[in-house]
Amino acid sequence: MEIKRVYTFGNGKAEGKADMKNLLGGKGANLAEMNLIGVPVPPGFTITTEVCNEYYAIGKEQVVSWLQEDVKKAVEHIETLMKSTLGSVENPLLVSVRSGARASMPGMMDTILNLGLNDEVVEGLARKTGNARFAWDSYRRFVQMYGDVVLGMKPVNKNDIDPFEEIIEEVKNAKGVKLDNELEVEDLKQLVGKFKSAVKKQTGQDFPTDAYEQLWGAIYAVFDSWMNERAILYRKMEGIPAEWGTAVNVQAMVFGNMGDTSATGVCFSRDAATGEDLFIGEYLINAQGEDVVAGIRTPQQITKIGSQRWATLANVSEEDRKTNYPSMEESMPEIYLELDALQTKLENHYKDMQDMEFTVQDGKLWFLQTRSGKRTGAAMVKIANDMLSQGMIDEKTAILRIDANKLDELLHPVFDKDALKKAKVIAKGLAASPGAASGKIVFNADDAAEWASKGEKVIMVRIETSPEDLAGMAAAEGILTARGGMTSHAAVVARGMGKCCVSGAGALKIDYAGKTLEVDGLTLKEGDFISLNGSTGDIFEGRVATKEAEVDSDFDAIMTLADKYTKMTVRTNADTPNDAGTARKFGAKGIGLCRTEHMFFEGEKIKAMREMILAGNAEGRRVALAKIQPYQQADFEGIFEAMAGLPVTVRLLDPPLHEFVPHDEKGQKEMAEAMHVDVKVIKQRVDALHEQNPMLGHRGARLGNTYPEITEMQTRAILGAALNLKKKGVTAIPEIMVPLTGILYEFLEQEKIIRTTASQLFKERGDSIEFKVGTMIEIPRAALTADRIASAAEFFSFGTNDLTQMTFGYSRDDIASFLPIYLEKKILKFDPFQVLDQNGVGQLVRMATEKGRTIRPDLKCGICGEHGGEPSSVKFCHKVGLNYVSCSPFRVPIARIAAAQAAIEG
Amino acid sequence: MEIKRVYTFGNGKAEGKADMKNLLGGKGANLAEMNLIGVPVPPGFTITTEVCNEYYAIGKEQVVSWLQEDVKKAVEHIETLMKSTLGSVENPLLVSVRSGARASMPGMMDTILNLGLNDEVVEGLARKTGNARFAWDSYRRFVQMYGDVVLGMKPVNKNDIDPFEEIIEEVKNAKGVKLDNELEVEDLKQLVGKFKSAVKKQTGQDFPTDAYEQLWGAIYAVFDSWMNERAILYRKMEGIPAEWGTAVNVQAMVFGNMGDTSATGVCFSRDAATGEDLFIGEYLINAQGEDVVAGIRTPQQITKIGSQRWATLANVSEEDRKTNYPSMEESMPEIYLELDALQTKLENHYKDMQDMEFTVQDGKLWFLQTRSGKRTGAAMVKIANDMLSQGMIDEKTAILRIDANKLDELLHPVFDKDALKKAKVIAKGLAASPGAASGKIVFNADDAAEWASKGEKVIMVRIETSPEDLAGMAAAEGILTARGGMTSHAAVVARGMGKCCVSGAGALKIDYAGKTLEVDGLTLKEGDFISLNGSTGDIFEGRVATKEAEVDSDFDAIMTLADKYTKMTVRTNADTPNDAGTARKFGAKGIGLCRTEHMFFEGEKIKAMREMILAGNAEGRRVALAKIQPYQQADFEGIFEAMAGLPVTVRLLDPPLHEFVPHDEKGQKEMAEAMHVDVKVIKQRVDALHEQNPMLGHRGARLGNTYPEITEMQTRAILGAALNLKKKGVTAIPEIMVPLTGILYEFLEQEKIIRTTASQLFKERGDSIEFKVGTMIEIPRAALTADRIASAAEFFSFGTNDLTQMTFGYSRDDIASFLPIYLEKKILKFDPFQVLDQNGVGQLVRMATEKGRTIRPDLKCGICGEHGGEPSSVKFCHKVGLNYVSCSPFRVPIARIAAAQAAIEG
Repeated sequence: MEIKRVYTFGNGKAEGKADMKNLLGGKGANLAEMNLIGVPVPPGFTITTEVCNEYYAIGKEQVVSWLQEDVKKAVEHIETLMKSTLGSVENPLLVSVRSGARASMPGMMDTILNLGLNDEVVEGLARKTGNARFAWDSYRRFVQMYGDVVLGMKPVNKNDIDPFEEIIEEVKNAKGVKLDNELEVEDLKQLVGKFKSAVKKQTGQDFPTDAYEQLWGAIYAVFDSWMNERAILYRKMEGIPAEWGTAVNVQAMVFGNMGDTSATGVCFSRDAATGEDLFIGEYLINAQGEDVVAGIRTPQQITKIGSQRWATLANVSEEDRKTNYPSMEESMPEIYLELDALQTKLENHYKDMQDMEFTVQDGKLWFLQTRSGKRTGAAMVKIANDMLSQGMIDEKTAILRIDANKLDELLHPVFDKDALKKAKVIAKGLAASPGAASGKIVFNADDAAEWASKGEKVIMVRIETSPEDLAGMAAAEGILTARGGMTSHAAVVARGMGKCCVSGAGALKIDYAGKTLEVDGLTLKEGDFISLNGSTGDIFEGRVATKEAEVDSDFDAIMTLADKYTKMTVRTNADTPNDAGTARKFGAKGIGLCRTEHMFFEGEKIKAMREMILAGNAEGRRVALAKIQPYQQADFEGIFEAMAGLPVTVRLLDPPLHEFVPHDEKGQKEMAEAMHVDVKVIKQRVDALHEQNPMLGHRGARLGNTYPEITEMQTRAILGAALNLKKKGVTAIPEIMVPLTGILYEFLEQEKIIRTTASQLFKERGDSIEFKVGTMIEIPRAALTADRIASAAEFFSFGTNDLTQMTFGYSRDDIASFLPIYLEKKILKFDPFQVLDQNGVGQLVRMATEKGRTIRPDLKCGICGEHGGEPSSVKFCHKVGLNYVSCSPFRVPIARIAAAQAAIEG
Repeated sequence: MEIKRVYTFGNGKAEGKADMKNLLGGKGANLAEMNLIGVPVPPGFTITTEVCNEYYAIGKEQVVSWLQEDVKKAVEHIETLMKSTLGSVENPLLVSVRSGARASMPGMMDTILNLGLNDEVVEGLARKTGNARFAWDSYRRFVQMYGDVVLGMKPVNKNDIDPFEEIIEEVKNAKGVKLDNELEVEDLKQLVGKFKSAVKKQTGQDFPTDAYEQLWGAIYAVFDSWMNERAILYRKMEGIPAEWGTAVNVQAMVFGNMGDTSATGVCFSRDAATGEDLFIGEYLINAQGEDVVAGIRTPQQITKIGSQRWATLANVSEEDRKTNYPSMEESMPEIYLELDALQTKLENHYKDMQDMEFTVQDGKLWFLQTRSGKRTGAAMVKIANDMLSQGMIDEKTAILRIDANKLDELLHPVFDKDALKKAKVIAKGLAASPGAASGKIVFNADDAAEWASKGEKVIMVRIETSPEDLAGMAAAEGILTARGGMTSHAAVVARGMGKCCVSGAGALKIDYAGKTLEVDGLTLKEGDFISLNGSTGDIFEGRVATKEAEVDSDFDAIMTLADKYTKMTVRTNADTPNDAGTARKFGAKGIGLCRTEHMFFEGEKIKAMREMILAGNAEGRRVALAKIQPYQQADFEGIFEAMAGLPVTVRLLDPPLHEFVPHDEKGQKEMAEAMHVDVKVIKQRVDALHEQNPMLGHRGARLGNTYPEITEMQTRAILGAALNLKKKGVTAIPEIMVPLTGILYEFLEQEKIIRTTASQLFKERGDSIEFKVGTMIEIPRAALTADRIASAAEFFSFGTNDLTQMTFGYSRDDIASFLPIYLEKKILKFDPFQVLDQNGVGQLVRMATEKGRTIRPDLKCGICGEHGGEPSSVKFCHKVGLNYVSCSPFRVPIARIAAAQAAIEG
């Protein structure tokens, strides 16, 4: 039994096949597959992953002796099909060499192109293509790539620049040019010479001229890269065994710049912008792939219909079009027919819209690459639905085809495309809440409300926002802040409102007093127009036209389909009847987080709240709280009514009290007058409430346990509201949630107050209602001791915002000082406030769920942090066994899709 | 096989014995044991824990029918021995009833005394004792206790006061007296009557007059209390099975106030103050136990030698003494001999110094209680050593006898006892750093340093301290702050210096400008004397004399013994050669935490540090840091030299940069002048460094990864110092520690910088040295992903201060707003910054150690938080398998003892 070490492919045949991924690697198996379904890809061969293991187990020499014959034969196989010869000057075959493990893996050798060139062959290539610059540039690139990857030409000192780049700089400086493409043939020749000298000097070796020597060097380099430091570290992190090994793929190079019977292009099997089922693409005759993208020549359309559409938009006459910009359908009708047939075949085979690259060399069509095509949100939904009704894919696949995050595009206003082209970006912030908005700048909430009431569209610009800004935020078209991250107050509230927000735009210098905004030398005043793209973080000067979002029947169809497969419920985070209504329209099945702090702010409420804060004892606090209660009860009635028949989780007061008092002199004076006390008293109390780290301070259950009166009042308001609705025949399902529990006894104290207050209330009213008492799990200790806490709590809701803050030790308000650098250095792969950190924070979520259910098997667990609307996090929640996720109203559809996908995948 | 349900004891006999704790409960087994070794305890009987189970399984009636006969016989057994009868008027026997589970358990019924009294018996008791007031007061107490515990006389509404206390208040008010003991016989009679009416009114029952009815009621109450809410909750928390059950102990009451052949007293088998091996104690003839304690009559000494010593101190002549204050040895010689023999027997039996209570009733000696006696730190050490050399205990026992925390008394100055009696406490704060200190008040660090340099003893009084106060703290005798907890800056630094500190004394109003301190109406000025007790938190007005600590040979002997058994190493947290030297004298085996931030503060260093902070780029920062490096290197040389041959873990810069810049206008102006820039620039930079939650901000590894220059400089300083010492023949063992790691890649980045810098330095110097690179584990995420981090880190050091902050979500600077209430309400059993929270924070420590060692089995793990010097935490560290604990120099002996105890216990 001879071991087969080399698998060839080409000309519609292949020795391997699609399911041999373990042996041939992902890339090798795919190349075999494309051949077998009849797609013409440049021929080549794959050296198996088992050879990689032999290479390390038995040693290079032995393995090479085994391979020698096979590789030679496989190269001849390519030569036969390509009618050219490796190393030949007259008719040179060039090849590429790539690594290819089961899964793509950072740290490994990537690609060497144009292998086979030397000082003679390059001249042959120049003659054959009639393009000396192309030939020498190809050679220059090959020497550079090969020198770096195979011959180990690295900088001598870590901080030096790459030795080849250093030479390029030298040559460009000598010539006085700036760009690589300004170099001419003679310069390129000079470069090659200098590159080779550098190789000789640093490595002591001559650059190999023999094509086979080049090829073997590249093959060794692939195998060697399997054991380099970065690859080992990556495998260790991802738990990939070293025994998997990597394959080596060697493939013929083809060229679209061999004359007028050659061409190159890219195409899509459907329209990536609209989703329309129409073949579309661009090509250029006698060109390289780079030329299509580079924009030096205007690429032409592949189909006639596409070409005509283009001409209309570009204002080109049909005559002019036919003559100067003919479609491929018209200029190369036979190749076009083959291309069209093959694109259909590929879409049918991969059952998804394909993005393909092809080259025509001397009248022969080659496919270089095919992959699922990127598309807009609208196209994504339409294509999934179309393919489902065309019978190409089943329902589950249709759902899996949705990139949940892209749904956002369909749910918020966007900028008009043409208007956007003319708009000038003046700065960038975080894409805090999606959508597009345009309006006049105002610098505070009062102005925002006032201007909006006069019919002006305004953008509220703040250094950062606080609960006092709520009314202004509601009135504005969009919100822009200079400080704060993805979970800053501005960002969280804006997402809840479905309102466009760009946060943390650090480049802005905002002057409240002067009512100006300065950025990079430009000064904008109050009343000047500004525009925000909350989906990208872009900030534009002036007015940019927007258009409204519209969800269509395709969207509805996909959402309905999702609910058929989903296992988790999707709730919403909503604090007002309005938000609750919006979320319900988007399919929310209850409220997972109703924050009550906003209910303390307006008019009389804040006055009473401040009275409470000022009171010296429980009695005084009770008197003040009694004034707030009716307002709060009315708020709850509205919310319960909007969510009639569905559960509503109400979180007891969470933020530290200092958020409710004025910190500026003017506000303190007003408060003093309203309270009939000296302003000194106010100042003292405000100072006493100051905290070094308010995030870790006197808040949440700590408030309720030091001021039990607050919990009493809120319990009365919640259950009183529910009782009132019961009388009207409306079913309220309240779930009372204790925030910031860290210790079982903390919860027990709060639960006792809630249940005692409830009993008293039910007795007074002669009526009662079912309710649950549960807790947020947002303190690491709560997760660690979840079994104890579950002995009393009836449900858990993971507050992953705070849990992330404490698990990482990051203040979301201060993270801007290092987060960008951490993301850039890849210390963090993503912002953990946007995407749940499954290894750390997720571990606590899983642990708490499991521990909690050992004590209370039917414990209802959900998530109400910002992650509840982020697809990968939603999927994690499904995997961990949560019962529901809760997110801001406008992310409910996203969560529904992600939840359905999780159920299907999992 | 009849089941035995009732076990009697008395008169040197007992049906049970010491090892029947499961059946008889702890108390019952102990009472049996005392009888069997011949100690006369009042006779009685124990109903077994199995009966408790029967009570719940089979039901009260059935169980009572089984018990009826046994209990009757057991009561008769008591009556015979006590020559009195339950319910008899002429010669009444009174009994006590107590619960007694295997372990003492909160929530259960405690004690009912004087059972057997009714309106007739009380008169008999009055006649027999000739003390009507005593008889009626006993009766009043019995009715009150029985009414509460057995008849369930609780307040009707939760917030009402106890119904009996309400009646007492009424009677006292009517009589116009304030104290209970001002009530006369008639008043007490009136009370009893009113108590009974109240019982009748609230429960509908008459108060039982029959002694047996009373007895059965009390027995039921004990069993019922086993299933009350608090007891169930406690068992649930502690994992105690309900099947353990509780026993019931019924025991004869004895009275020391039956005339001149009766007496009562307390005694110790050795001197609890000095540890001297001398029998010692006090007694009173014809008195109750209360009288000895109450201080109304002067108690007399038990031994003649004790009596004579007392007379000398009290300035009483030998004549006067013999006549009016004779010792028991002289006044009751026979009883004395029996007592002396028995105390020796008890000490020999329990092998520890005993604290005993006894009563002589009609010439017969009864022991009421014996337990290990409380003692001073000095006595504790001396007794352990003495008993070891007397052969009473072995080495391990001697070590286990040390209450590690009490060693503190031996290591710090204390107040002179007599001076203390006259001192006036004006406020109380937290006992932040032990010792006693007296000095003149100063309000800032500069004054402290200046006054001290003139030979003044000063106490530095601050609202809170910051690193800028270091020099002042070093110069002061003690530190007093109005804000901040046990791990505030002041507390941590003071403990490190072994300096007395009282922190967080919230009652103080400090006025820096006016240089005054106001508390409770009293105003103290700069220069006024004040005194602090850092071991209790007491603050005294004026000067209180102190005396120096002195450790003796007993202390040395115990410490040497401890090292024989210990498994963990004890290191110290030290930032200066001086601290390192102190710790080494106390037995530290290296430095576990050398903080480097203090090294940036003095003179030129802070100037260069500020230059660095102001620099706009890495190059500017490097220039500034180069100025600091020689200073820092010199600091490290000093520390390494003091710890020559022992490992020194150096933590890289940890605090946020804003701690290094001035926040006041004056400071900013000075900085601007020194830096030659506009003060606006300084202000802007300081503002930019401001953070909402600095604790969770830009610090630790986040600094090193955004400003790698700092890590480079510190690495050069540390390893440069080690190389310099190597030349001098001194061995430095540096361990470089990355602070605040939360992500593996964060550590990898730092490690790369450190190792690259080290290679460069070693190359430059042509010499090298061994060193380790490890990390703090102080972020919950680091603990959760410790396996990943251990793939790169060579050691872990648990920073349990920060880990506690983040695991609980508590800012130690802000905890004062709720911690006292949490402790009072028992939501927290202890301050988690003092005692390691084993359930939560400890779970992370254990998890990280275990996970880390799955990847790196020999991973060195230690703890360097404040908990490293707290005995229960040290024991936990041993259990988890840490290699060392590290604590402030003055707690090293405490940690050494705790570590040895853990090894012996474990």
